[in-house]
Amino acid sequence: MNRPYVHINVAATADGKIDTFERKGAAISSARDRERVDQLRAEADAVMVGGRTLHDEDPTLTVKSKLLREERLALGRTENPAKVGIASRLDLEPDCNFLTAGSSRIFLFTTSQTEESKLAELRALRAEIYVLGEERVDLTAALRVLKENGINRLMVEGGATLNFELMRLGLVDELTIYVAPMIFGGKNAPTTAAGSGLVRSGALPLKLIESESWDDGGVLLKYHFEKRSNDDNHARTIPGSPG
Amino acid sequence: MNRPYVHINVAATADGKIDTFERKGAAISSARDRERVDQLRAEADAVMVGGRTLHDEDPTLTVKSKLLREERLALGRTENPAKVGIASRLDLEPDCNFLTAGSSRIFLFTTSQTEESKLAELRALRAEIYVLGEERVDLTAALRVLKENGINRLMVEGGATLNFELMRLGLVDELTIYVAPMIFGGKNAPTTAAGSGLVRSGALPLKLIESESWDDGGVLLKYHFEKRSNDDNHARTIPGSPG
Repeated sequence: MNRPYVHINVAATADGKIDTFERKGAAISSARDRERVDQLRAEADAVMVGGRTLHDEDPTLTVKSKLLREERLALGRTENPAKVGIASRLDLEPDCNFLTAGSSRIFLFTTSQTEESKLAELRALRAEIYVLGEERVDLTAALRVLKENGINRLMVEGGATLNFELMRLGLVDELTIYVAPMIFGGKNAPTTAAGSGLVRSGALPLKLIESESWDDGGVLLKYHFEKRSNDDNHARTIPGSPG
Repeated sequence: MNRPYVHINVAATADGKIDTFERKGAAISSARDRERVDQLRAEADAVMVGGRTLHDEDPTLTVKSKLLREERLALGRTENPAKVGIASRLDLEPDCNFLTAGSSRIFLFTTSQTEESKLAELRALRAEIYVLGEERVDLTAALRVLKENGINRLMVEGGATLNFELMRLGLVDELTIYVAPMIFGGKNAPTTAAGSGLVRSGALPLKLIESESWDDGGVLLKYHFEKRSNDDNHARTIPGSPG
């Protein structure tokens, strides 16, 4: 396969929200879930986020546990997974967490909407930048580049638009959702997968692998995406294509 | 308590959607889940829906199983539960399913936005209509009226706005979600609870009662709403109040 194994992880409320309508990066995970996510990061070759998460939340995307980082080093891996940002237009400040925390490789995928001067500035800060597309980043091409750069296991940490686009394009293998026992509501609050959405006949089928109830009131749902033939894939993506 | 026991039931996709962005009432439930919902209806004194569901989907809200209807009759109950519609502005056609299917009592709660001629027309069709409010229906008052009319157990079948408003006002006891193994996506697709939404500090806590994995790939989540004191309730509803 000319792309990494792709695993999307989210923490969502019982009503399917991954943040409040304010979009300030509301805490949803429990302590136990944060440990699980740190473990997933530690197992990944790279961690990816979309443009809104990248610019509004400025995540560090590093492994929090010293023990897990030491385990990576003992295995001959880098201390932290590589970081990947996807954004139609890059507008990162040089001193942001994403660029400065840790010493792992940094991949940025963008479009011709990002100014040349910004590309030069970010490249000088050791970011490896690929311009793939005009309106939105060509995600299939981006995953190919990552694979060519030794990324075999990719963890995706949102947001809602990136999650949906990866799913819609058939580029996701696994989805885990920590369902937290709370309600945010909000017709404008982001959900696990947003974007343009699919019609009913284009809905993406999942295979439930596991469902775990936790003492903290959370439920961990683990799904695989149903394998689709190329024909199926084609037929399914037409109706909901955002064009 | 001067309101019925209120149970909201939804079928949602893994990404939290209760319909596609097209809002045509997409099928989400499995065969087994449809049986479960029919059983819930058969146990209820009344079934409630909000304005958009009422007008766009025109549900019958009757018990599908003949056996369950016969059981109700054997217990001295009506064949079907009463029907309740909540809509700021009523615009039902006289021959719609909601008004014509079955012979149970029909309660309609609306505001002064509904024209007098429409109120008269619907009253002539045996609907019991209450005008409660100017902009939106006073849900607390509506539940009081239902209780006074012998409705002790109310099942709410959406949609997203009604669900949220009932939750926000602290009027819900129980929430069951059938999580179907599929993805709809869509930033405009309706979710389990929509409306204006709450800020993080105003999030409504749930208590997980049960989580069941089904062979059809679905997961049934059953929650109770945490009991809140009046003070808590007050503090929590201020931030997200839609005013």
